[in-house]
This record gives sequence, C-alpha cells and structure tokens, in this order.
Amino acid sequence: MSVLTLPPTVRIVEVGPRDGLQNESATVPSDVKVAFVEALAAAGHRHIEVTSFVRPDLVPQLADADRVFRDVRKRDGVVYTALVPNERGLDRALAAGARSIAVFTAASETFSQRNTGCDVATSLERVRRVARRARDEGLQVRAYVSTAFVCPYEGVIPPAAVTAIVDELRAAGIESISIGDTIGVADPAMVDRLLDRLLDASAARRPDAARPLEGIALHLHDTRHRALANTLVGLQHGVEEYDSSAGGLGGCPFAPGASGNLDTHLLVEMLEAMGIATGIDLAAHDRAAEGMVKRVRTGG
Amino acid sequence: MSVLTLPPTVRIVEVGPRDGLQNESATVPSDVKVAFVEALAAAGHRHIEVTSFVRPDLVPQLADADRVFRDVRKRDGVVYTALVPNERGLDRALAAGARSIAVFTAASETFSQRNTGCDVATSLERVRRVARRARDEGLQVRAYVSTAFVCPYEGVIPPAAVTAIVDELRAAGIESISIGDTIGVADPAMVDRLLDRLLDASAARRPDAARPLEGIALHLHDTRHRALANTLVGLQHGVEEYDSSAGGLGGCPFAPGASGNLDTHLLVEMLEAMGIATGIDLAAHDRAAEGMVKRVRTGG
Repeated sequence: MSVLTLPPTVRIVEVGPRDGLQNESATVPSDVKVAFVEALAAAGHRHIEVTSFVRPDLVPQLADADRVFRDVRKRDGVVYTALVPNERGLDRALAAGARSIAVFTAASETFSQRNTGCDVATSLERVRRVARRARDEGLQVRAYVSTAFVCPYEGVIPPAAVTAIVDELRAAGIESISIGDTIGVADPAMVDRLLDRLLDASAARRPDAARPLEGIALHLHDTRHRALANTLVGLQHGVEEYDSSAGGLGGCPFAPGASGNLDTHLLVEMLEAMGIATGIDLAAHDRAAEGMVKRVRTGG
Repeated sequence: MSVLTLPPTVRIVEVGPRDGLQNESATVPSDVKVAFVEALAAAGHRHIEVTSFVRPDLVPQLADADRVFRDVRKRDGVVYTALVPNERGLDRALAAGARSIAVFTAASETFSQRNTGCDVATSLERVRRVARRARDEGLQVRAYVSTAFVCPYEGVIPPAAVTAIVDELRAAGIESISIGDTIGVADPAMVDRLLDRLLDASAARRPDAARPLEGIALHLHDTRHRALANTLVGLQHGVEEYDSSAGGLGGCPFAPGASGNLDTHLLVEMLEAMGIATGIDLAAHDRAAEGMVKRVRTGG
C-alpha cells in the first residue's frame, strides 16, 4: 500500500532575491537584481520575495530595496513580496508600491533577542501593528516563524511554542504563515510532530476544512540534505506551499552554522518528477539562477 | 495523525572502502585502506564492504583486494563483505578468507551490457553459479540490483522488471538484496511504487511475514539531494537496511552523470535524530571518513 498521498500542485515561494542575496557577501548592482526578479517571473514563478526594507546599515546588500522593488516590471498574476521588519519598513514598502509584505517572528526567545533585539511577545506586538496597517491598505501579509524546530541557542523547540505563535498570527489576521527550519537541522520526525499539532489545532478550529493546513508553508534549509525529506513529510500532511532559493543562494547571517537555503532547482525537479505541478519552467529558472550564482561567487 | 511509522533500528552497510574508493581516481596505499576499514569497525559499523575482487586492469584502485581483505583485523560481530563479479573473483575472495560476498546484476539490459558485458539473463546465470558455490562454502551472499529505478540509457525502469529480478535472486537462495538508484534520480514516488510491488510480491509469498521487506536494502545516491527523502519512504515501508559511503566517497564510473554515494554521516545523523538506532559512533566514524576524504582529494 502506497505510503504517499500527494497534492497535485504546490506553490513555490522564490526567496532568492531577498533571503538569498541578503546573505551573500557580494553586492549586486540594482539593475541586475531587477533583471533577476523579472527572469524568475518569466520562468513561471508566481510568488517572489523581491527584497527587504530593513535598515541599510544592518543589511547593506539590500540598501537599494526601494529602487529594486519599484523598478521590477510587474506581471499580472505574480505576487511580489517585500520583507518588512517594522512600521518604518512598511512605509517604505508602500512608497515603493508593494502589494504584499512579509513579517517575521521567532519561536525561540533567545533567537528573537539576538535577531530582532526583542522578546517574542514584543516581536508579535510589532507584527500585529504592521499587519493591521498593511491589511488596512489592502496588502497581503505573510509571516515567517524562524527557528520553529531547533534554535542554535536553545536547542529543540517544543511544537506547542510554535502552534501558540501560529494562533497569535492567525488572530492577527495573517493567513499565510511560513514555518522556518532556520539552521537546517529539522528531521522528518520533527516536521511530522509539528504538522500533527497544527492539524489538531486546525481541526479544533475548523473541523470541516477540506485543506486543514491551507495557509501553512514550509521554509526548509538543506544544510544536512534533509530539506527534501522534510518536504515529503509536508506533502504527506497536505502542505501546499514551500519556500526555496534560486541557486541555493543565502542562509541566515545571525544564526551560527546556518547555511543552505533549499535550492529551488532541487525542489522543483523532485516535485515535477513525482507528478506534482509547480508551473515553473526549470530550464528558464536555471538560466536565471546560474547567472546570479556566478555573479555572487565572483564578488558581484 | 502522524504520517510516519518508523522502525526502531536500521542496519547500515558501509560501502566506502569498496564502492567509494573504486570510484575515486586517487590510489590509496593498502595499509591505509586496511586502517580505514578497521577504524570504521571500531566506530560501530557492523557490515562493511571491504573491497572487490575484480580484474585489476579494469579497476586498478582495488588491485590490492587480496592483501587488503586478508590484512584487516576482523572483529566478532562484524560482516566484512567482498564484491565478487564471477567465479574467479569468488576463488580470490575465498583465498583471502571472506565469509560474505556481494554479487551484482542490473534491472536494465543496456546498463547490464555496458557494465558487465552481458545481458541480464546471462548476468543472473553468473550470479546463480557464484551464489551456489558461495553457499556451499557457507558464505553469506548479498546481491545488488543496479539501475533499479532509472537507467542512464533506457530511462525509467518498470517496477515489474525489478520484482522479476528480485524473485530470481531469491530463487537462487540470496536473501539480502540491495536495490540501487545507480544514478541518483529516483524520486520518492518511484521508491514508493517499487516497494509497494515488492510488498505485494512478499505478501503473496509469505502472507504472515511480520517484516515483509526483510532482506531488502536500499542503495541510494544523493546526486539530487533526494537520498534522505527516498530513505524516508523506505523507512515508512519497513525497509531496515541502507547502504552508504563514508565521506560520500565514490559513485559509478560506468554510468554517465552518476555521482554522490549517500554520505554515511548524513544518513546516520538523520536516523539518530529521529530516534532510530544505528549503533554507529558518529564522531568516530567522522574521524575515519575525514581522513580518507582528505587523502583522496589530495591524490592518495
């Protein structure tokens, strides 16, 4: 008897231009970033995280966020997301014409302190304020939950801590939540346990939901070559949205040992081989990715 | 509801000294190979493929098979296997004191022709002859089925072709059969389909078996980072034996594009993280693997 029950399609959120380039030391010219995003959209990507409106002194790689976001020629049917850490970032995203933002929090207190300078409760309060204003402006809001499985400082994070945060984010009206294996050490059993908890919570809230994990995405790192195994557990639970990075660009500069965003190529290739449609033209995607990888490897 | 039902323990077959070193261009001194095998056994490995008794002119890396096999100080409870392509190889293995051999065939006619110079039926006849003599001598016999999912020349191999070969091998009295993803392009759905077929065949043969896939092992390559996802499908079907290579050494020199034996470190690390015992001391294993990787990278 087959152990696999798989969804017919999945959505890929391409995070290379933001999560990727943010964590590469090379500084890439703005027009090259713009062309990269446009090439990814032309390859069939329908959700691209374009940049981040963070403080330029903290993340100089994305100091040109305003210009890059504005200059990308937008295609109908493509969601262009900007990461926004706070209300100042939201102002900049709105000024650049963003219609979709991503906010972030963490499941680990220590990681939250080190990554964002505040505890999780304060981080959630910040997220609520940004999300409320964004929704008032008619924007889509996505939230990342970092260190949802293991924290580099605290170790294994209990699933209950994550489901509590997911509840808070849902209460704040955020319906798209990406669960992050920030340092790439989640194993399939951990993913299974957390998704079970989220399924239980969903069943309690909406017992008749046809897709109980709708709105839950997985943001997996491939540091220990487990990203596709963890993806498989997500698919078996009905998770239909996965983040990945063109060329495997990036990681997380604030997390020791973090590396290895899941390469979109590896993800799409496996999904399509299994008959799961992604809508992405892999040859076109690869051309875009390879050009950028070559550039950052040679210093921009 | 958890999607994972996992076995409490698995057996690792460490193939680095044979499948690994055979496919590295560096020539490693015999005493270094012997020390490598001994260090792996000291790290807790209970099944090590030590070398291959192939023609030295075809695989010069293993020309010292006789000496290496003989010189390894054998530990109780450890299976030391030698790959044997034919009766001449079996003679050499017996002379070197081998108590366990591995034979091989392929699921693809074209691969069989190119890899062993004969069709699958002839290859199976050869295997039967070697296995019969080996069992008469009281040896354990393991068989590899190469290109069991995808052949570099023929493409996708139908599961029925593999189950037919497994039946032939079982009829020849071979109870340990390793199913190989020779070029590392199997996907989890393929593994699921093949293991389903093998389960059906097993249920027809032994309807009351508590472990219907006992004696089936998976030999997965990590070329496209799917080896651990494919391992997970194996675990979910109850497969309890997996081949891997210390340091990810080796691949297959006869298969274009083949590379990336699954690194034992990545496999053990994931299994242990999931609470599946392997008996391997990973720190000790890593010391052995890193020394050998450094040596082959610098030319032996």
